[in-house]
Parts: sequence; C-alpha cells; structure tokens
Amino acid sequence: VGDQVRRQTHVVLETVEAPGSRFVVRFDSGARIPLDGRSSPEAATPVEAVIAALGGCTGIDVISLLRKKRQVVTGYEVVVESERREEHPRIFTRIEIVHRVRGRDLDPHAVAESIRLSDTKYCSVHAMLEAGVPITSRFEILPD
Amino acid sequence: VGDQVRRQTHVVLETVEAPGSRFVVRFDSGARIPLDGRSSPEAATPVEAVIAALGGCTGIDVISLLRKKRQVVTGYEVVVESERREEHPRIFTRIEIVHRVRGRDLDPHAVAESIRLSDTKYCSVHAMLEAGVPITSRFEILPD
Repeated sequence: VGDQVRRQTHVVLETVEAPGSRFVVRFDSGARIPLDGRSSPEAATPVEAVIAALGGCTGIDVISLLRKKRQVVTGYEVVVESERREEHPRIFTRIEIVHRVRGRDLDPHAVAESIRLSDTKYCSVHAMLEAGVPITSRFEILPD
Repeated sequence: VGDQVRRQTHVVLETVEAPGSRFVVRFDSGARIPLDGRSSPEAATPVEAVIAALGGCTGIDVISLLRKKRQVVTGYEVVVESERREEHPRIFTRIEIVHRVRGRDLDPHAVAESIRLSDTKYCSVHAMLEAGVPITSRFEILPD
C-alpha cells in the first residue's frame, strides 16, 4: 500500500524530562504519529497502533476489492477484538476482525471473497502478525 | 504499556466515495490515528504504523530502563530500518533498530542491557513481529 521496499523511520523522544515517555514518529511523507506508554486523547500506545494497522490494512484492501466487484458500499467499519497475555512480553493471544459493511444490495459472496483475499494474500500486516497469533475474520452486512 | 488485556478497536472508513481509502482508528482513550493506502502528510499507511509501533514500543521501554539505571538522557531517537518483499503479502524481510542516545556520562553497558531487556522481555510489539521477521538492534552514544 504505497510503501517503498526499503525505508527508514525516525521515532523521537519528545519529553526528555522523566517520567515522560511521549515519542513522535516522523515519516518521509510528513505524517506524524504520537505514541506514549499510556493511552490518552493525544497519543495511542504502540500496541494500539499495531491493532490500528491491522484494521486499516484489511479495511483498505476490502473496500478496494468490493469496489472492483461493483458493490455499492455506503458505510464500513472494521472492529478489531484482541486479547493479550498479562505476562511480559504481552503479546496477543487471539485477534478477531469483524467487518461491518453497509450498502445497497450487497452480495455476501463478494464480501466473503474480498475478506478472504485480504487475509490470505494482500494484507501485509495480517501476514506479519499471523506468524505469532491466530487471527479470525467474520462480517456483518447492514442495511443502507 | 497501559493496555487492557481484552479490547475492541474501531476502524472506520472516512471517505465513502471511490477511490478514497482513508480510515480513522478510534480508541477508547479518545486517541485517533488516520490511515490511508497512500502515505501523505495527513495519514500514514498501515505498514508505517507497524514500524512506528515497534520503534515507539522499544523506545518507551529503553528510556524507562535507562532512568531506573540513573542514566542522564538528554536526547533519544530510535531509527527503524526495514525491508519488505515486493510480492504480496509484502511482509518485512529484515528490520534493524538503531538507538541513538544522547546524554551525560552514559554507561554503554546500561544502554546495551536496557535494549536487551526490551528486545527479549518487555517490548510486546518486538515479540509479536519477531515470530515472522529477523529483528536486530544496535546503539550509538552521542555527546550531550
């Protein structure tokens, strides 16, 4: 999804005074993501960013595939449900992705096939994470 | 780092009109991360968010551990160098994390040990990704 094959990302400590742990991630594009050890309205945690990446990655794939299949989508939300260990390192133990698609005369087979293609072929973040955690997907079709 | 063991994250399509693929991730804390299929100053890509998460995760660990070891850090940047496959799914093939630590009389052993603890014990994102990709770490100590 629009990335170089090789790249360098800069993650800079913003609050040098203890106990602050706010970092700002700077991308070549100019985009910035603030991250912190505690979640707040101003910054997500790194683990939240991983979940965000998974939902965004599969969502971008699926909306693109549905449009290629001439499906009329009027609303779309990806809900990522995750569970983590309590012990360090606090890795995910289970992830479920729920696709909630709203549209006109949506074909369930088109939705299922788009999700399958994302999960098995296109979504890089899914492929990165599934080496270490089981990920399941399901979908709901909602009226327009 | 401040997360619930079980959680639900909402990733919502913002641009319903084709070919837009901007999603906004909404966390319980109120934090938001915009993601898009193409990187821009307004939104990172999902794969960029994964790299951000890795750099932020280890950075938060290491600055916390260095402070516990009474190290005086005056500047700190984590540079994440990544390589990906060109074929789908475009997973990482290699990641190197470079810690650039600036401070007064920094002890190289304290820096090395903090990085080792993050990589092997505390950094959840590192543990999640290393199931699928080799990750190496090194550091540079810079004068205050």
